[in-house]
Amino acid sequence: MAKIAIDMDNVMADLTQHLLDVYAREYGEVIDPVRLNNIPEGSAFPEGVAMKILSAPGFFRGIPVMAGSQEVVKALAAQHEVFVVSAAMEFPLSLAEKHAWLEEHFPFISWKNIVFCGSKTIVEADYMIDDHDKNLSTFKGTPLLFTAPHNLPLQDYTRVNSWEEVAAYFELNAVESGASLQTVA
Amino acid sequence: MAKIAIDMDNVMADLTQHLLDVYAREYGEVIDPVRLNNIPEGSAFPEGVAMKILSAPGFFRGIPVMAGSQEVVKALAAQHEVFVVSAAMEFPLSLAEKHAWLEEHFPFISWKNIVFCGSKTIVEADYMIDDHDKNLSTFKGTPLLFTAPHNLPLQDYTRVNSWEEVAAYFELNAVESGASLQTVA
Repeated sequence: MAKIAIDMDNVMADLTQHLLDVYAREYGEVIDPVRLNNIPEGSAFPEGVAMKILSAPGFFRGIPVMAGSQEVVKALAAQHEVFVVSAAMEFPLSLAEKHAWLEEHFPFISWKNIVFCGSKTIVEADYMIDDHDKNLSTFKGTPLLFTAPHNLPLQDYTRVNSWEEVAAYFELNAVESGASLQTVA
Repeated sequence: MAKIAIDMDNVMADLTQHLLDVYAREYGEVIDPVRLNNIPEGSAFPEGVAMKILSAPGFFRGIPVMAGSQEVVKALAAQHEVFVVSAAMEFPLSLAEKHAWLEEHFPFISWKNIVFCGSKTIVEADYMIDDHDKNLSTFKGTPLLFTAPHNLPLQDYTRVNSWEEVAAYFELNAVESGASLQTVA
């Protein structure tokens, strides 16, 4: 049984999609997702806008679930010690919202296994699944880079492009046959 | 420079005193603090009452600061890497309240150095200052038991009875002379 630290934003929660959706709704401009590739997060939006959207009440509560994450995290948690580790502290409003979001979408994760932090340098685990170099570079266990538009240039890590690839990496049952992962947990 | 994980409740925040005060105010009964000695937290109160008080909105926001903690944590943070690590996840309302409490009373602690978690088994540091055996017993660094009524029977740890003793343990400047620790930071 391994200890696995899993990031929320852009890993369990599709933050990028939500940012594009909210921006389109509130600013009336649709941004082509490919414009987000290979550049720092938020920099495809006008100066300060991404930070403003992220800081607004309700943003983190409404993020859609990343495709496949519920089934695979559930299956992982049945076989391993899974911790959700989110750098929530930069956005204080997100603390309550992320807690409620996890209760709704990942009710099988115990409160004991949730960590809201700032820097992740204090986290000790066997694996960390994250989309940020800054979190993975100081991690002493095995880092797994979850693909996000901003991290496409990174080549230093084992990359997982989807939750299906996470399931395959950890050799979860029923993955290769295509059967529902729900049956594993 | 050492990495030091510091607990909030009963270490930086005088939770025990606040619990006694709120109980006296809301239930009209003054409990002698010595009745809390050597027994599990909350068990000196009628069944379920301590949990009810802790779960009420505002409880964690109003806890008084533990004597000496501000000065010594500030001095520690000037010389070491200090992380505030609180098991806040059991009481979801406490997330926002603890964040606001830290901003008010410990404004020199960066959001990057705050961790709200459930289980502390995921925390990696050189030292952990905590009042709970359950947090210290699995810690791989050096545990320091901060004295609280419920932990008086514990004999397995290096014990610190006050923030003055924490300052002495880490050999902070200006401690032994009795000069203000404020000047160190």
